[in-house]
Amino acid sequence: MKPSLSAIKRIEIEAQKIGGVVSLAQGLPGLASDNVIREAACNAIQNGDADRYSFSRGIPELRNELSNFLQKQRLAYNPDTEIMVTAGAIEALSSIALSLLEPGDEAITFTPTYYANYRNIVSVSRGILKSVPFDEANNWRINFSKLEKTISSKTKLLILCNPNNPTGSVIPQEDLMKLGECALQHNFTIVFDDVYHDIYFGEKPYALYEEKRLRNNILRIVSFSKVFSLCGWRIAFIHGPEQLVEKITPTHDVLINCAPVVSQYAVLGGLPHFERIAANARETYEKHRTFVLEELNTLSKYLDFSVPEGAYYIFPKLKNVPDDEAFCMDVLKKAKVALVPGSDFGPGGEGHVRICFGRKMEELEEGTKRLREYFR
Amino acid sequence: MKPSLSAIKRIEIEAQKIGGVVSLAQGLPGLASDNVIREAACNAIQNGDADRYSFSRGIPELRNELSNFLQKQRLAYNPDTEIMVTAGAIEALSSIALSLLEPGDEAITFTPTYYANYRNIVSVSRGILKSVPFDEANNWRINFSKLEKTISSKTKLLILCNPNNPTGSVIPQEDLMKLGECALQHNFTIVFDDVYHDIYFGEKPYALYEEKRLRNNILRIVSFSKVFSLCGWRIAFIHGPEQLVEKITPTHDVLINCAPVVSQYAVLGGLPHFERIAANARETYEKHRTFVLEELNTLSKYLDFSVPEGAYYIFPKLKNVPDDEAFCMDVLKKAKVALVPGSDFGPGGEGHVRICFGRKMEELEEGTKRLREYFR
Repeated sequence: MKPSLSAIKRIEIEAQKIGGVVSLAQGLPGLASDNVIREAACNAIQNGDADRYSFSRGIPELRNELSNFLQKQRLAYNPDTEIMVTAGAIEALSSIALSLLEPGDEAITFTPTYYANYRNIVSVSRGILKSVPFDEANNWRINFSKLEKTISSKTKLLILCNPNNPTGSVIPQEDLMKLGECALQHNFTIVFDDVYHDIYFGEKPYALYEEKRLRNNILRIVSFSKVFSLCGWRIAFIHGPEQLVEKITPTHDVLINCAPVVSQYAVLGGLPHFERIAANARETYEKHRTFVLEELNTLSKYLDFSVPEGAYYIFPKLKNVPDDEAFCMDVLKKAKVALVPGSDFGPGGEGHVRICFGRKMEELEEGTKRLREYFR
Repeated sequence: MKPSLSAIKRIEIEAQKIGGVVSLAQGLPGLASDNVIREAACNAIQNGDADRYSFSRGIPELRNELSNFLQKQRLAYNPDTEIMVTAGAIEALSSIALSLLEPGDEAITFTPTYYANYRNIVSVSRGILKSVPFDEANNWRINFSKLEKTISSKTKLLILCNPNNPTGSVIPQEDLMKLGECALQHNFTIVFDDVYHDIYFGEKPYALYEEKRLRNNILRIVSFSKVFSLCGWRIAFIHGPEQLVEKITPTHDVLINCAPVVSQYAVLGGLPHFERIAANARETYEKHRTFVLEELNTLSKYLDFSVPEGAYYIFPKLKNVPDDEAFCMDVLKKAKVALVPGSDFGPGGEGHVRICFGRKMEELEEGTKRLREYFR
């Protein structure tokens, strides 16, 4: 199967054509990137540090700082051999899948999730993506008996977004530990697509990669797109065991050569301020969540939803509306609000829509107002 | 075959370990990026324009300007459907190969060339790279009878670097026209890896993509890494017929989402000054070429070389030194000068070394001085 553009991208292109649309579709953070980040980038540019290639795995200074950053989370990763800076999480995922999947190999993911992209990445890698639907009735928990039935000798990767996009659910420690056992037993690699890791509203998501016995079975992608509001900068990193990072490096090298150097310096400038910036993001998006939940509560006749524990999405089920694609096109045309149809997120997503509350407060106010009018 | 790091990368890593090395290895431009480019990037950052994703194909404003830029070269490409901004030439090439090659399909390239990367890209795409050696004795011209024997029903792409890296040779119009006929006859796509297109020292390389009847058989990658000195910024673009750009877009989307937005604004700022910046690059590298040629002329007992017509490399043949890899390691250790072994550039490259004269004049002075001492 050939890759095709996700509904998120198609909706955004459609919205652009219509004009005057409030988009609650693409997962863009409403917060601006911090001044320390912007200044670090501009300084690097003015000093001429951004012009040259870096090593494929990133500038050594940044890898050292990332290693220290992980150290504070009790994670020991060697900056030279176990850390690789990438051009965003998507390039990291593509490098991993293209390196670790042989044609016909299988990857598994729990749906609904960032499915359209996982499917495209695995398809470009000539692999097969199998989906195991989360149990919506049980607060989007993992259904382990379905998982066990899906694992085969061809399973090489399990791709996991936690907190999950689009459900906002967080996988409990107990379930993550069970997943770890599965990985050991069936000898596959768990790929943490940790894009929303620092955006949570209750307890911090459990860090399975702290488990030393799972060290060789875990690759983690940490993106700065959301927590540092650096989507356009294309910057993230992978940490994992040396033998896997070694395998991925030549693929990363032919996909991108190195992550954009200006963005590497931007993150280097931001890292000393990580706690402050992340806390501000959490606080802001928690306020946004409260606002959108209150608004959606007035629409409970039409929408059914659970309260997100992380990320910045709500994923309501449409009552009595079977076709989420048609619904989103209708809302886009009539109410000029862009939402993402749930079926884009894979099996179990049908009949839902994704609302991004990471956007600016003005957008949320205007968007929810238009939605209320639409339903009336 | 799995991809592996090119010798260029391995030599640069080795050089870093040794310390005090003058590198004439990696193709880094010695010129700094222009102030108008740096200011455009910093303005975009400070205005908050760099934080958001752009459309997969790039910000519309930049695509419009690129379309105008092509228009001045008598090339008509629609900014919405026939132009795609990429994260450097390598991401462009990977997107093309992953989109247009099915497992077992063949790509052809003329060697010596940027072979290690072409091989890795085609291998990641599960295709097969066939090489047709240039005719060194005939000024690195194409051997068409060898080419005809290599073309098969599985040939989908012909990848071409012109001016060529590492030989500095430029393919004459007559040969390009013949290549065009081959592409029409055998129905394959010519991919121009036009990274050095604006760095030439005699006549401007012939623009085969001006030929309207070849329009559907050509994809051209234009990089800003060398002419604008933006290697680290990861920015280039593809222009080609709508049906091919359409096919490549979803792959590009899963490899990178969009080119780094800050780099898109940098190029947008540089485009109105393209002629001045390109002329300055040509003038500078021509001076560098003259200097290095004079230096190498004193070493004609050991080296045999032709005068480069474009790009910024000289590719001397080592007299009486069969193992170019061992030679480069020896020069690195004894003279502390990094050169790239010719065998990295594919069949026909063995027994040669690549010297980059795009580097800073001080580096060229010190590097050639050390080389002279080494040979004595």
